[in-house]
Amino acid sequence: MATNPVFAALGRRLRLGVIGGGPDSFIGIVHRSAARLEERFDVVAGVLSSDPERSRAAGQSVGLDASRSYGTAEEMLEQESGRPDGIDVLAIMTPNESHFRLCSAALDRGLDVVCEKPLCNRLDEALDLVRRVEKSGQVFCAAFAYTGYPMVRQARAMVGSGVLGEIRMVQVEYVQGHLARLTESEQGKGQNWHMDTAIAGPSLILGDIGTHAHHLAAFVTQQQVARVGADLGTVVPGRHVDDYVGLLMRLENGARGIMWVTQAAAGAEHGLRIRVIGEYGALEWQQEHPNQLHYAPLDRPAQVLSRGGPGLEAAAIRATHIAIGHPEGFREAFANLYCDVAEATVARLIGQPADPLALDFPNVVDGARGVKFVEAAIASSRADGAWTDCILEL
Amino acid sequence: MATNPVFAALGRRLRLGVIGGGPDSFIGIVHRSAARLEERFDVVAGVLSSDPERSRAAGQSVGLDASRSYGTAEEMLEQESGRPDGIDVLAIMTPNESHFRLCSAALDRGLDVVCEKPLCNRLDEALDLVRRVEKSGQVFCAAFAYTGYPMVRQARAMVGSGVLGEIRMVQVEYVQGHLARLTESEQGKGQNWHMDTAIAGPSLILGDIGTHAHHLAAFVTQQQVARVGADLGTVVPGRHVDDYVGLLMRLENGARGIMWVTQAAAGAEHGLRIRVIGEYGALEWQQEHPNQLHYAPLDRPAQVLSRGGPGLEAAAIRATHIAIGHPEGFREAFANLYCDVAEATVARLIGQPADPLALDFPNVVDGARGVKFVEAAIASSRADGAWTDCILEL
Amino acid sequence: MATNPVFAALGRRLRLGVIGGGPDSFIGIVHRSAARLEERFDVVAGVLSSDPERSRAAGQSVGLDASRSYGTAEEMLEQESGRPDGIDVLAIMTPNESHFRLCSAALDRGLDVVCEKPLCNRLDEALDLVRRVEKSGQVFCAAFAYTGYPMVRQARAMVGSGVLGEIRMVQVEYVQGHLARLTESEQGKGQNWHMDTAIAGPSLILGDIGTHAHHLAAFVTQQQVARVGADLGTVVPGRHVDDYVGLLMRLENGARGIMWVTQAAAGAEHGLRIRVIGEYGALEWQQEHPNQLHYAPLDRPAQVLSRGGPGLEAAAIRATHIAIGHPEGFREAFANLYCDVAEATVARLIGQPADPLALDFPNVVDGARGVKFVEAAIASSRADGAWTDCILEL
Amino acid sequence: MATNPVFAALGRRLRLGVIGGGPDSFIGIVHRSAARLEERFDVVAGVLSSDPERSRAAGQSVGLDASRSYGTAEEMLEQESGRPDGIDVLAIMTPNESHFRLCSAALDRGLDVVCEKPLCNRLDEALDLVRRVEKSGQVFCAAFAYTGYPMVRQARAMVGSGVLGEIRMVQVEYVQGHLARLTESEQGKGQNWHMDTAIAGPSLILGDIGTHAHHLAAFVTQQQVARVGADLGTVVPGRHVDDYVGLLMRLENGARGIMWVTQAAAGAEHGLRIRVIGEYGALEWQQEHPNQLHYAPLDRPAQVLSRGGPGLEAAAIRATHIAIGHPEGFREAFANLYCDVAEATVARLIGQPADPLALDFPNVVDGARGVKFVEAAIASSRADGAWTDCILEL
Repeated sequence: MATNPVFAALGRRLRLGVIGGGPDSFIGIVHRSAARLEERFDVVAGVLSSDPERSRAAGQSVGLDASRSYGTAEEMLEQESGRPDGIDVLAIMTPNESHFRLCSAALDRGLDVVCEKPLCNRLDEALDLVRRVEKSGQVFCAAFAYTGYPMVRQARAMVGSGVLGEIRMVQVEYVQGHLARLTESEQGKGQNWHMDTAIAGPSLILGDIGTHAHHLAAFVTQQQVARVGADLGTVVPGRHVDDYVGLLMRLENGARGIMWVTQAAAGAEHGLRIRVIGEYGALEWQQEHPNQLHYAPLDRPAQVLSRGGPGLEAAAIRATHIAIGHPEGFREAFANLYCDVAEATVARLIGQPADPLALDFPNVVDGARGVKFVEAAIASSRADGAWTDCILEL
Repeated sequence: MATNPVFAALGRRLRLGVIGGGPDSFIGIVHRSAARLEERFDVVAGVLSSDPERSRAAGQSVGLDASRSYGTAEEMLEQESGRPDGIDVLAIMTPNESHFRLCSAALDRGLDVVCEKPLCNRLDEALDLVRRVEKSGQVFCAAFAYTGYPMVRQARAMVGSGVLGEIRMVQVEYVQGHLARLTESEQGKGQNWHMDTAIAGPSLILGDIGTHAHHLAAFVTQQQVARVGADLGTVVPGRHVDDYVGLLMRLENGARGIMWVTQAAAGAEHGLRIRVIGEYGALEWQQEHPNQLHYAPLDRPAQVLSRGGPGLEAAAIRATHIAIGHPEGFREAFANLYCDVAEATVARLIGQPADPLALDFPNVVDGARGVKFVEAAIASSRADGAWTDCILEL
Repeated sequence: MATNPVFAALGRRLRLGVIGGGPDSFIGIVHRSAARLEERFDVVAGVLSSDPERSRAAGQSVGLDASRSYGTAEEMLEQESGRPDGIDVLAIMTPNESHFRLCSAALDRGLDVVCEKPLCNRLDEALDLVRRVEKSGQVFCAAFAYTGYPMVRQARAMVGSGVLGEIRMVQVEYVQGHLARLTESEQGKGQNWHMDTAIAGPSLILGDIGTHAHHLAAFVTQQQVARVGADLGTVVPGRHVDDYVGLLMRLENGARGIMWVTQAAAGAEHGLRIRVIGEYGALEWQQEHPNQLHYAPLDRPAQVLSRGGPGLEAAAIRATHIAIGHPEGFREAFANLYCDVAEATVARLIGQPADPLALDFPNVVDGARGVKFVEAAIASSRADGAWTDCILEL
Repeated sequence: MATNPVFAALGRRLRLGVIGGGPDSFIGIVHRSAARLEERFDVVAGVLSSDPERSRAAGQSVGLDASRSYGTAEEMLEQESGRPDGIDVLAIMTPNESHFRLCSAALDRGLDVVCEKPLCNRLDEALDLVRRVEKSGQVFCAAFAYTGYPMVRQARAMVGSGVLGEIRMVQVEYVQGHLARLTESEQGKGQNWHMDTAIAGPSLILGDIGTHAHHLAAFVTQQQVARVGADLGTVVPGRHVDDYVGLLMRLENGARGIMWVTQAAAGAEHGLRIRVIGEYGALEWQQEHPNQLHYAPLDRPAQVLSRGGPGLEAAAIRATHIAIGHPEGFREAFANLYCDVAEATVARLIGQPADPLALDFPNVVDGARGVKFVEAAIASSRADGAWTDCILEL
């Protein structure tokens, strides 16, 4: 709603390169349009397919110059680092198995990084990325995009302000329906890397969306998940990967939690929801109606806080771009991550500190915590649901 | 909406006696008004206090004859059994510890019984009651009143009809707020039997409302809970009874489940909600908006089934008394249990079979299963959340 | 939730007689169960059919003594006035055309009266009833039952407290679906007095439910409707009575309003809803979810006030009988009218003033205003929608 | 979700110029980001302020080349028409009074046009634009952006398919809160052209948002508004423009309608909502939760149709870009207008017919109908609410 801070600082927009997210993917245009939405980034370079020929063609179709529609990641990184107008930031939205390699390569070239979840498939890789980023001070965003919703940030800010008092319970659920039946690839038609644990990682459900639920719980409660007792499994007959997890949790402060994550719920859409209950009140937010945050204070009437409306914290206000009552959606949430990354990258480029609120996006440590969480939940489930430690030791 | 079936069969209304539920209690007038609501019962006798003097006075204030406002249960049972117009059914709404004794006494007198949950505090007592009822054929209703809501019955009937296919997941939550703070009795002012495990039983949260959630899950899914992994505890500092349980479940058919029950959620009202997910669709019902049932079929638009509206099963239709759009509430749900008990009692009195739908109310076996569930959850929680068997062996 | 005030004052419950509302009607058991719900009234006498024989049989089926199951209104009034334990109050739920005659007769016998809406079909009759009641001081309730909902009373109280400031706009709608098609009687099968203007009055839609909407608007805004511009008509082809009205309104203080009332909306249930907008905020209530009141204050987050919850006015608290989160419905709303009438009648019997809040139920003047409103709307619609005066001159 | 049709046809993206919508405006970035969202347009030229100096600076800040950041509309039109890579389409988002002049100039230069509502302030101007466009065949979109929501298009398609049968009633409301108090300009601080009827047109409320409500009603019902009876006025004391209109309507087929439009509702957000009731069912949509469409069929359970979900019409499917459950908002709706304009412009450029569904966006005739509606409503309100003809004669 105000002046473009990137242009104000640099006299130009930032330059984004993308790897993955071809014209037929869901996530490609989400990243590209999110990056452009608030006019912080131009998308100028990309590798949009693992097939070099198709990659070059696809790049032009999404608006890249032919000269910057690359065939491979290596080619892009090499060429862009040689240009005076080379990319500032690289966004990675490839299959999970490649995340570690591509993130490492981008960091080596001095680029700031936006990487899709899960950060990677192995804890040692995750820790390696954490150490690199901590050492270099590069900007690294783990794209837990739901934390870009203004009302999620409002929830986090309210917890931080103490208005809920001590957190006592958290419930988070992520109940999707798109795997309610065996997919075509599971019936032998075509390929879907999500169903291949060598690519997707040791647990489909935990890696694909469990890490979102886990991060959201920590982001909002401002507490890490300390221990889990898990029931991981498969509810659709004939499936060879897991599609369900039920989880009991204990947060750092001793608060109790419960998590339900599945992609196999017939009739469900995209049911990410969180409820946080503290000493003095409760918050509830659901992704399918993201512009509202329900706040139930002890001894006073329930409130419905509204994006763009009265009574909001700075963290929510700065993440709001359209006036009250005009719904913002998933792309605006995603765009908020890119706005934050832009501020952080600008700060790095001009050598000045960024607004702390702009730095409050999910980073490489959050990504690594997600990897640790996946490991802990698998271990607990294999041990008859025994409580298993989940804290990431750095 | 039709002719009064009790009057049609007997030429009179049934006669109810009540034990417990004095003028200042929540539950007393709920039982009395529910019993009278559809003109099946007159409330004619009662013991409304453990203090004989107060009991006699209170009886008259709620509309009993002075002669049938008794001082003690023993007195009421003795006197009523000697009258030609003595009570047909006894409703028991006293503190938990007395349930076994009063149920036994009522059954001994040949009365049909409506008993508040939990059935009792010990499994051996529960099994004893089951055996008595099975032997005598008396009518026994465990007052899991939420199953009286027409749309809960609709949900059960839809599961039974196979419209959801195989059940794959169930989530049930019962999130109340009235113990979000220490009560006066917990601060040393006055008495509250709920906080005394000698009266309320081994777990406050499980006995008081966990049994409701457990029964609702089984009632709707038409599956018993086979195993549980539980996290039972106390979230309010300074409290000496448990006020929280998180539970992982496995149903008889292998379906997975998750339960969240607490009375310590600041800002919550009376949040009983259930979601059942099957092969071909999902159901969702919440007690605070009980006249709607959300049905999300696979591959078709979501539906909102409405009490009194089109497309309902017989079990829901017969439990509906007011036309569509005029909300029915908790008392009507409770009244449905009484209507069913009335039909069952009439059938017994006239020696004819009742409508099978009228017999589908929670009975003594359901009550005993709740007691078994409490035991299993406590055992699991003590064993680091280990999966623990929950099936009642009869 | 407290001691029964009728019993406390009189040492007995009040005695209600009913005219109309046979076993197969919707409204009969609603009145009877509402009167009994909070143990203020016993229903002891009745005329349940215009056929004396059927009336006597029906009376017993709903629990009346054979001796008080009368064949005609005259018989009941005569007999009851001669008994020491005769009825205190008469409830009238007969076809509209008979209201004036029956109300007059009951008032003549010194009875207090509860009469279904519309008060009557002609303004001169309405004014006659007003004068009788004003002269005698008898209790007279026009059964605009939606004003019995606690959250409607909360809305009225908030307007009265000034929290909304000056009222600027009101929107009220009552959108039902049960006449979306021609009824059986309209197709020549059977009789339905609603379709006969000689009985139902000059406008079906205005008399049957328009008066509810009109009263609700005035009750909540604490303003009378001063002028109307109306579009009255029939939307279902082949129908000979009106089933739709769209109305522009001006309240006494100049506030603007809009009303939409129909029974011919396919797919609708019982959509009574009101929105009141003042200088400092807005209220919204809908009958299908009656336990919540939405309050949107200027410059502060929206609130959802909840029956039984925090932050309520005395008028709402005293009308609440069951604890928060256990839904109350239409019968509890209706019961609140009976509770108020009981307090007013007791006050009259013992010669002491009643609690002013207990006297805030819709009375004979409110009923007469509804009759005036029907006349004004008809006149406006006939005059090309011209603004037409609606104030009742007493 | 599929290949970019603009790139497929032209081998490039379309080029958009913009007039109006500076960096601090609400509407500027909405148009620019909507145009870019699905990668159909690059925004390449603009005039972002009426002050030439500020305009040139602003252009660069939003990402235009310095050479195409123009000082005036005339300069832009002149320069761009001389470039081989000149703009294809001009988007106009200036104060209302300038619309006619700018539209005319753009059409004269052979450009396709997207113009903000209202089309213009006078009916003769509107008719002039209609005639120009009809003659030249240029693409002209009146930016009634709410019709870009997929579920609004679903509603329109369902009406068209006959699933509702004959339309019988429509209710539309647009209840905003941002003028609940006098604005700063109304208190003498600063300028706001909306409050100046010489610029904003003869009625603020009708021109600014009444035209949206009017168009939405016609778009969904597939019926023009034939006659209106209006109550136009001001509810906030001290205001000199109108901020409220209540309207009775008659559609072409005789269906009855009702409209409530205001910007002065304290506590309101952006409450645009429409309900359409036909012979066989009803539809309801509200802008604040735009991804759902409520469908209540006669005799069957209510449905909630969901953007991206099962059971949708082609018009909704093609307007959906992100998978089910990831909310789309106002910008995606706006982007759908731009996607349609892109298809129409491409078809014109390559001389081939466009997909008829792509041509179903609000056009210059719809814009002119809005101007006629404003005139009719003003006339009716001045004539005591008399029914006034509203059909645009072409």
